[in-house]
Parts: sequence; C-alpha cells; structure tokens
Amino acid sequence: MTPFAPHVYAERRRRAAAQAAESGLDGVLVTPGPDLTYFLGYTPAAETERLTMLVIGADDPDGATAVVPLLEAHDMVVGAVGGVETLPWSDGEDEHAVAARLLRDGGRYAISDAAWALHVLGMQRTLPSASFAAVTHALPLLRAAKAPEEAARLAAAGAGADAVLAEIVRRPFAGRRERDVATDLAELLRAHRHEQVDFTLVCAGENGADPHHEPSDRVIREGDMVVMDFGGLADGYGSDITRTVHVGEPTAEEREVHDVVRAAQQAGVDAVRPGATCEDVDRAARGVIEDAGYGERFIHRTGHGIGLTTHEPPYMVAGETTPITPGMCFSVEPGIYLPGRFGVRIEDVVVAFPQDVPGVDDAPHAAVRLTTSQHELLVVE
Amino acid sequence: MTPFAPHVYAERRRRAAAQAAESGLDGVLVTPGPDLTYFLGYTPAAETERLTMLVIGADDPDGATAVVPLLEAHDMVVGAVGGVETLPWSDGEDEHAVAARLLRDGGRYAISDAAWALHVLGMQRTLPSASFAAVTHALPLLRAAKAPEEAARLAAAGAGADAVLAEIVRRPFAGRRERDVATDLAELLRAHRHEQVDFTLVCAGENGADPHHEPSDRVIREGDMVVMDFGGLADGYGSDITRTVHVGEPTAEEREVHDVVRAAQQAGVDAVRPGATCEDVDRAARGVIEDAGYGERFIHRTGHGIGLTTHEPPYMVAGETTPITPGMCFSVEPGIYLPGRFGVRIEDVVVAFPQDVPGVDDAPHAAVRLTTSQHELLVVE
Repeated sequence: MTPFAPHVYAERRRRAAAQAAESGLDGVLVTPGPDLTYFLGYTPAAETERLTMLVIGADDPDGATAVVPLLEAHDMVVGAVGGVETLPWSDGEDEHAVAARLLRDGGRYAISDAAWALHVLGMQRTLPSASFAAVTHALPLLRAAKAPEEAARLAAAGAGADAVLAEIVRRPFAGRRERDVATDLAELLRAHRHEQVDFTLVCAGENGADPHHEPSDRVIREGDMVVMDFGGLADGYGSDITRTVHVGEPTAEEREVHDVVRAAQQAGVDAVRPGATCEDVDRAARGVIEDAGYGERFIHRTGHGIGLTTHEPPYMVAGETTPITPGMCFSVEPGIYLPGRFGVRIEDVVVAFPQDVPGVDDAPHAAVRLTTSQHELLVVE
Repeated sequence: MTPFAPHVYAERRRRAAAQAAESGLDGVLVTPGPDLTYFLGYTPAAETERLTMLVIGADDPDGATAVVPLLEAHDMVVGAVGGVETLPWSDGEDEHAVAARLLRDGGRYAISDAAWALHVLGMQRTLPSASFAAVTHALPLLRAAKAPEEAARLAAAGAGADAVLAEIVRRPFAGRRERDVATDLAELLRAHRHEQVDFTLVCAGENGADPHHEPSDRVIREGDMVVMDFGGLADGYGSDITRTVHVGEPTAEEREVHDVVRAAQQAGVDAVRPGATCEDVDRAARGVIEDAGYGERFIHRTGHGIGLTTHEPPYMVAGETTPITPGMCFSVEPGIYLPGRFGVRIEDVVVAFPQDVPGVDDAPHAAVRLTTSQHELLVVE
C-alpha cells in the first residue's frame, strides 16, 4: 500500500498514548498485522514465532520503541515509515525479557487482538506483576474512527467493489457453477484496484441459507436467488459488499423477503445518528426483520468495522454500547436465511458523520454509503 | 492438501491427550492454523476474530469438541476429516463463556501458540481459576515427531525444492535484478508441486550479509555471491532450502568462507545421533564457524522444525535441551555474514532417525537430508 506521510504515524501513536492514559493504561503493545501497519507503516514479510512488538508508552508517545528480531531489524528500519527506536533481540535470548525492559512493574497494557498466545503468555510469565488486555476490550476505538485520508481509501475500495458488481451482473449466471462466478469476482476485484482478495462468496438457491457458504460446484439455475458477498484490500484498505440477485423472474415471496432485507438495511443505515450506539444499528435492522416475522431467520450480527482489515471493531451487535463517532466505517448487512430454500443479504460499508471524504458527497443521512450499487432486486440471466 | 484417513486424526488427538495427561495438563486448546489442520483436518476459509477452538480433554480423547461460530458450523462439519462434536455459538453470545463450559475449574491447559491474545485473555477472564500455557512451552513435541506419512510429504516437498534449484542455476544471474530471480523461484516452486510459496529470498553481494534481506531492484553482477533461500508448502507440508552460488569465479576468501559454512552444516547434520539434544546441533555447527574465526558473524540459530508450517518447534538453538527423537524434521542452516561484503548460508531439511520414509533411502548418518542438491559452491553465469 502507498504509505502515508511520516507525521501521520507519529500522530497516530500520540493519539494511542493519549487514549491509553485516559483509560488508565500504561501503554499499548502492538504486534504484526493491521495494528503495526497502522502505527508504524511496517508490515513484516511474514508473521512468525519470533517476537516483533512496538511499545507505545502512555507517558512517552514520542519515544515508542520496537522490539524486533535482529534478523529483521534492518528491514524494519528500511520499511518503517514512522521512525521509532528499535530494540533488536538475538536467537537464543529470552525475547520476553528483552521486551519487559520497556514495560513497567505492575503496569497495565493493551495488546493487539491477534498477538500470539505464545507472546502474551510469555509476557505474563516474565512480568507477572503487569496485566494485559486485548485492544478490542481495553481500547476498542484505537483504529475505529478513520481519518479523512483513510475514509478516502475505503471509498475508493468501495467504488472498486461497485464496479465489480456492475460487471458481474452483465455476465451469465444460469448454467455456471458458483465456483466459476467466484473466480470471476476475484479477477474483477484485482482489475478494480484490489491487491488482495479476501472473500468471494457465491451462494445459489439453498446454499444462500448458509451465510458463510463457500463457493462450490453447485450449478446455478433459472429460478435461483444468488447471494454474492465479496471484498478485499485496495491500497491497503478494505471493501465489502453483498447483493442478492435473482436468475430470471422472482416469485412474490422472494420479492417480499428481499424487500424486508432492503428495508432493514436502510433502517440500519438510518440508525446512524448523533447519540446512537453500535447496538442501535443492529436493533434497527433487526426490528424490521422481526416485525416482518423473520426474526429467527436473521442469524448473525448486523455489521463489523472495516479499515486495514475487512473485519475489525466496532461490531454492530446486541450488547455493544459503544457510541458511534465521526469517521467510524463499518458494514450494515442484515439477512434472512430460509434453510433448504434460499437466503437474502444486502450489505454496504458506511462512514459515520463524514466531514471531509474526498470523492464522497455530503449526504442527507448521517451515515454515507461507500458502496452505492442499486438495492432493488436485480434480475440476471 | 490431500487429507489423511480419519483414523489418523483420531490417533493424533489420542496422542495429544496422552501427552497432556503425562504433563499434568487437563487438555489442549487448538485454534485455527497448523494445529487445527493437524488435529481435525479442517482449515477455516479465513482466520477472524470469531473464536474457533477444538478442546481435547486429557481424560476423554475420543470426546473432543470444537467451539465454532454458528456461521461456520456447517463448513466445519463438511470440511473436517476427523469427526468431532461441534458446539456452535452465535453473534452476541459470550464465546469465551461457551468455551469455558468445556473446561474445568482450576484446570491447566496448553493452547496453540498462535491463538489470538483476544481469546487467551478472554478465557483467562472468564475462567480465572484455570491456567494456560503456550503449546511451545507446555507440549513442545506435540507435532514435532513426524509420522512416516508426514515425512514422506516433507521428502516430496524437498524433492520439489531440489528440482527448483537445479533449474534456477541454469538460468542467467548477471544483469538481472534480485526481484527477477525471486519471481522465477516462485514460479518454479509452483511448477514443482508447491501450492503455496512462503519465501523466495535472493540476496546478492552485500545484501547477502542480511540473512532476511527481501528481494530488491539490486542488479546481480559478475563477482557476486548470491544467497537463495526459498520454500513453501507442497500438499500441505513444507520445503526450505538455501544454497549460495557465485556469479563467475569466486575469490579464495569467498571459497574459504563457503567451505567453513559447508563444514558447519555437515557438522550440524552429523550431530543428530542418539542422545543428542536440539542445542547440540546448534553447538556443533557453531563450533566449526567459531574455530574458523567467524563466530561473531553467525548471527542466528542453526535451525527450526518444519511440517505443516515452514517454521515451528523444535528450534536448534542454545538452551534448547529437548532431546531429538525419531521423526523430528528440521532445518540445519548455519551462515556467515560479512557486513557490506557478502554472506553464505547452506540449508537442508533433515529427518531424524528415519525408519520408514517412502522415497528416502536408509543413510549412513542418523539424520537424512530431505534436500540433496550439491553442497559444493556452484558457479553460475
């Protein structure tokens, strides 16, 4: 991905330090993956068992230090956009003891969700007086509110996904396997800005009732509802869109179910208003589906955050009382799943209360969709 | 990868339960990645924040149960080779509370090294009386000793890597960029059985002094030493080979350094004999390099285990006193790195004390190389 300017990373670390301090934490421990990419602009060639960990102290945001395997220290110095101190360790050394030098006895730290158990347990053993909590629990908003330059990349990724949808619905469906359409989707994503394809679900007929059904050899037929859910990373930021199309003329029931999901999705988007929490979005979308008598058939949460990954906090789910704040980007994706028959899901990524997203106009709603393909049930051949 | 027979997975779980019991553990918690592939024959389409965890109880090896997101329960039932019970959880439920039902108050559990911090900390919070240790520390030998059918796949992967090397050294080096040769290596690996390419390091001249140097635009020239280190997965099992070649005639010093590394690598392989420990392999290889006066220039451990991943326990490193047992497969890869000038590394994967590896003949040494490309310094053009 194209790196941002160095000051962007320094500012992110300062904000993390401030959030940590506000939450009574002594710092944030950042391991390879989206967190390290976010705070350092550095992504190791591979994630291995060797410990790489950036330590951002709550009281010294400009003195962040990265523990790094000696073998990769050079790559980090060359590859990192945000210049930080490095603390290399050599094979045979106790890497957790090296890292512990940067931590405080009795300190409280947030650590990346995907940090390895090997390392979180290693740090606990080495520094038993310290305590650790996953970022999602301790600082769930660490990367949740996107800056305008991030929202712009998410918008560009969404535009790419829209372009893929526009092309795929012009191609034939009947007579092809789910797998064939999925292959097309992957190729189209790559043709439209994406350097990484994360998922290309194509769920025909009865397979649509399984929200995570993997593309199979099932041949698509006239009369099938087909759920397509695809996305990946474009210049480092995620896309994620779902549309349900119908091969030939739908029945009245199919139209009705699709209409309910469409109304539920709109209600979820409309629920993003000042003062709303994440669970409000779930409740709004779910309410429409429950009122239509399909409550038992909506078997997953309504959405998830998106940014440097296609799945991250905040989650639009019952019990998630985090307030929605400007710049949060997340999916709104209710569905109805009728076992043995068909499913319908409609999904867009939205940005909450956008103030300045290049390429995205101000909108009548408080949430602006970053994918804008038509929501009416589309008939394909 | 081609699955093994269902009884293979059941037997592996029984062995894990027995190892856990012997170590005073109440069970093993297995999360997505190589551990889950090993014990269940199931690899989720994506590793996400949603908890998937197989619980193997020390006292009930045939009653293993997998906690799985409801959305993926169907995929697991279809995809898992080793049939186990599933315990699905729904979005909005506390997945750690669901998993805790399978655990014992005050129990002691080993958990996959790469389990997310989110989950290991979640389990600790939900079941504070239980204790957890990473598999590498609690049960380092869980996957270390390969069964004959696994060693056979590692041998086939190694043969593929040998074939790649045989082809690449016939191609021109001088005038091409490191990146170009790396691209060739990736294509050749795919042409020779590999479905996944993990790394293709090409380090010319001064770049060879950085053991993990990533392929760059550096143009390879007459007179360069070139370290090539590449590997990936072939039918699910790993290859990993390093050879150092020279473009045109080497100097006497270059030959000498190469000879030292070659002797060190042989010493490391020869150290695999009954009663030897992992650190003995490191000490033997390192000793040769130290005796030649280059001790300070060998800046990494001598090797790592290999199997369903290209990096796993056991590690051939000072302090690792684990005895080497039949079927262990690991790399032996000493090197000498002269900053600003050049580097040399030679690496093979070996299997310890093989008794029955199809395709591998009995050997004069206790360790048998699974890559057998020539060890003499090869001159390329």
